[in-house]
Amino acid sequence: MSFQRWKEDLIELGRLGRRIPARIDAYGQLAPEKGLFRLEGTEEMRQSKEYVMARMREAGLKVRIDKVGNIFARKEGSKINRGAVMSGSHLDSVLNGGMFDGPLGVISALEAVRIMNDEALENERPIEVVIFTGEEGSAFKKALLGSLILVGKMPVEEAWKLENNEGLTLKAALDRFGLRGDFEMDLSEVEYFIETHVEQGPILDQEKIPIGIVENITGLTWVSAILEGEENHAGTTPMFARKDALVAAAKIVLFANRRAQEMVRELGGSTVATVGRMSVLPGAPNIVPGRVEMGIDIRDGIEEHMKNLMDEITGRMKDLEAECGVKTSITVPFYHLPHPCSKVVVDTIEKAVQGMGIQARRMNSGAGHDAQNIAEKVKTGMIFVPSVKGISHSPMEWTNWEDVERGIMVLTRALKDLSKLRI
Amino acid sequence: MSFQRWKEDLIELGRLGRRIPARIDAYGQLAPEKGLFRLEGTEEMRQSKEYVMARMREAGLKVRIDKVGNIFARKEGSKINRGAVMSGSHLDSVLNGGMFDGPLGVISALEAVRIMNDEALENERPIEVVIFTGEEGSAFKKALLGSLILVGKMPVEEAWKLENNEGLTLKAALDRFGLRGDFEMDLSEVEYFIETHVEQGPILDQEKIPIGIVENITGLTWVSAILEGEENHAGTTPMFARKDALVAAAKIVLFANRRAQEMVRELGGSTVATVGRMSVLPGAPNIVPGRVEMGIDIRDGIEEHMKNLMDEITGRMKDLEAECGVKTSITVPFYHLPHPCSKVVVDTIEKAVQGMGIQARRMNSGAGHDAQNIAEKVKTGMIFVPSVKGISHSPMEWTNWEDVERGIMVLTRALKDLSKLRI
Repeated sequence: MSFQRWKEDLIELGRLGRRIPARIDAYGQLAPEKGLFRLEGTEEMRQSKEYVMARMREAGLKVRIDKVGNIFARKEGSKINRGAVMSGSHLDSVLNGGMFDGPLGVISALEAVRIMNDEALENERPIEVVIFTGEEGSAFKKALLGSLILVGKMPVEEAWKLENNEGLTLKAALDRFGLRGDFEMDLSEVEYFIETHVEQGPILDQEKIPIGIVENITGLTWVSAILEGEENHAGTTPMFARKDALVAAAKIVLFANRRAQEMVRELGGSTVATVGRMSVLPGAPNIVPGRVEMGIDIRDGIEEHMKNLMDEITGRMKDLEAECGVKTSITVPFYHLPHPCSKVVVDTIEKAVQGMGIQARRMNSGAGHDAQNIAEKVKTGMIFVPSVKGISHSPMEWTNWEDVERGIMVLTRALKDLSKLRI
Repeated sequence: MSFQRWKEDLIELGRLGRRIPARIDAYGQLAPEKGLFRLEGTEEMRQSKEYVMARMREAGLKVRIDKVGNIFARKEGSKINRGAVMSGSHLDSVLNGGMFDGPLGVISALEAVRIMNDEALENERPIEVVIFTGEEGSAFKKALLGSLILVGKMPVEEAWKLENNEGLTLKAALDRFGLRGDFEMDLSEVEYFIETHVEQGPILDQEKIPIGIVENITGLTWVSAILEGEENHAGTTPMFARKDALVAAAKIVLFANRRAQEMVRELGGSTVATVGRMSVLPGAPNIVPGRVEMGIDIRDGIEEHMKNLMDEITGRMKDLEAECGVKTSITVPFYHLPHPCSKVVVDTIEKAVQGMGIQARRMNSGAGHDAQNIAEKVKTGMIFVPSVKGISHSPMEWTNWEDVERGIMVLTRALKDLSKLRI
């Protein structure tokens, strides 16, 4: 097994994602030396995809591009009429992100196929290495774009009209860089999917466990709340006469935080609740706040828990109307269900780590991934490798090379098993 | 006694403070029909001061203007070498304020003198009706300006250099409108001062008590705090691994609010604590807040209580470093001591209301007033009249005419007493 090969690929992709001084200004950002700005519809994305396609072809794979630029590289199987095993991830980055988020999953899948080639073993099922278009949504403002279209949740024609910050449509961008094809992948001919990804959180790093086996990709809902009290003079309005919107909002911040902690303790899940956005109005130090606008992010791998926590928080908010004399109103801009991974795939990954004597733990993914869309049509699983200090979406994102290597070994073993190779 | 006279004066001053459509744009605001925009250094201020000076002269008073435009109108006393009794307030308004905040105290003092004239009674001590320059600080950005200079806490030359939003210095503005004099008031020749003012809070209105006798003008301090936690992904960062700056800040909001309420309950004072300004950074709904900047406004009529509450709040903030994993830093941009009113003046006002069978209560002033500066050199008191619904610094500010009338009657009786008139 040649470790150097995948490492060189990842380093080269990191380099290709950085050569964009001219583009940086268009997004109003300066790239630190390590930061990655690889957006769909740019020259550096073209070069990156060309680089990977060249490696795919070198590995003997048949490369096809679909109408939104998703790339599929196929290794045929020895038996006909068997559903394929698919693996991959994305190459696009957030604005000023790191070098592993996405490329790791693409190169891991490619390397797994190269290892199988090296070992000259015959896979019964076809293997498809996939690069999804626009997972981060940083250029065309729609996250998980390629997988959304692949599973039919968004029409291609609608996606083509999406525009980036330069006013270029996705269709025009794909055409400009020769990345629009006419292949149509039929997911009914795909049996299994595995996405390898950096955890983006601190659990594996803190627990010193090299592999995470994802059981659920988190459900996610946002509650946007407006609390209206009474704006008043901070000096002349006695405490008893106040309707302080911030006091009510602070109670919600602490309630959501405390309940999420209690749920983790009681139920052992991955519940999180966060108030990340809060505007206090009018915002003068000597005026009792009359209005607070806040956003509450609630996530859980199990839908019932997510729903319960959302109900508790909105219920608490209603109670505050009497308790703090405020009026409250909420909207729920979205409510995404959790996506459970396939038991067959989870068990296969677990069998792989056990067979190799590698420590692993089951966990939920707190971030969204293309895998959650694919899971609606295909038996899906995810392999996580540790993020140093849990940092992601930052130039400081890092995963140690030995952890990347272990991830590739586990993925390779699982893909061999799923594609019915003797291992 | 002619009630119509003071009512006409207040209505006319309200009208004169409103004729400024051209000025409104300079402050980027539209004036609602009722709103007042009477700023120092404007034509409408010139007209308003000219109007009042004309009424002062009609009442036989000798009008003098000092170097920053403070106006003093003197009724001589029958005995020589007696310290004067001074009363008055300001004519300037906040941007888009109401018609009673300030003018009420000026016209009340003028009316008191006119009543004494009508009754042809001889006052032993001289009486000085005063109009302070720039109390609100809305034009030249320095609150309590006229009284600050009068008590010597700011040199005249420094005040003259202050600029308004149009780039006009105070000196140039006073010269342009003929309001810069050369009179120098010597406060050592003033024995007592009473300022009549609207309460600006809801206590008198809610308790249906027509007169407030101020015992203390509140002390005021601001604590500016920065709480630094760790910015993180709201989905992938488990609850246990967070250093959420907003969770820590919410604890401070509730602690300050609860302790102020408890202090009022336990000590019966006028303690208030307010978090009116809070910035949550980076402010994205899906990012755990890494930084919160907040301002805490703490006021009390008694210095020890104010100091204790400030110490408790900053102590609680230190505790949060361990509790929430945040770093905290505070600055105290100012710390103004409470100003107790003179017992002699408070008792004189109380005797007046008792003699007239008017219900009154002792209270603290939660807002700042020129009286707090004068109190450093002169035996000072304040008379409050009710603000409907406690509203102030708003075009909706209102005080009922019968309450204005009662305030004038009480002030008149107290001034008669202090100036040794038989009453």
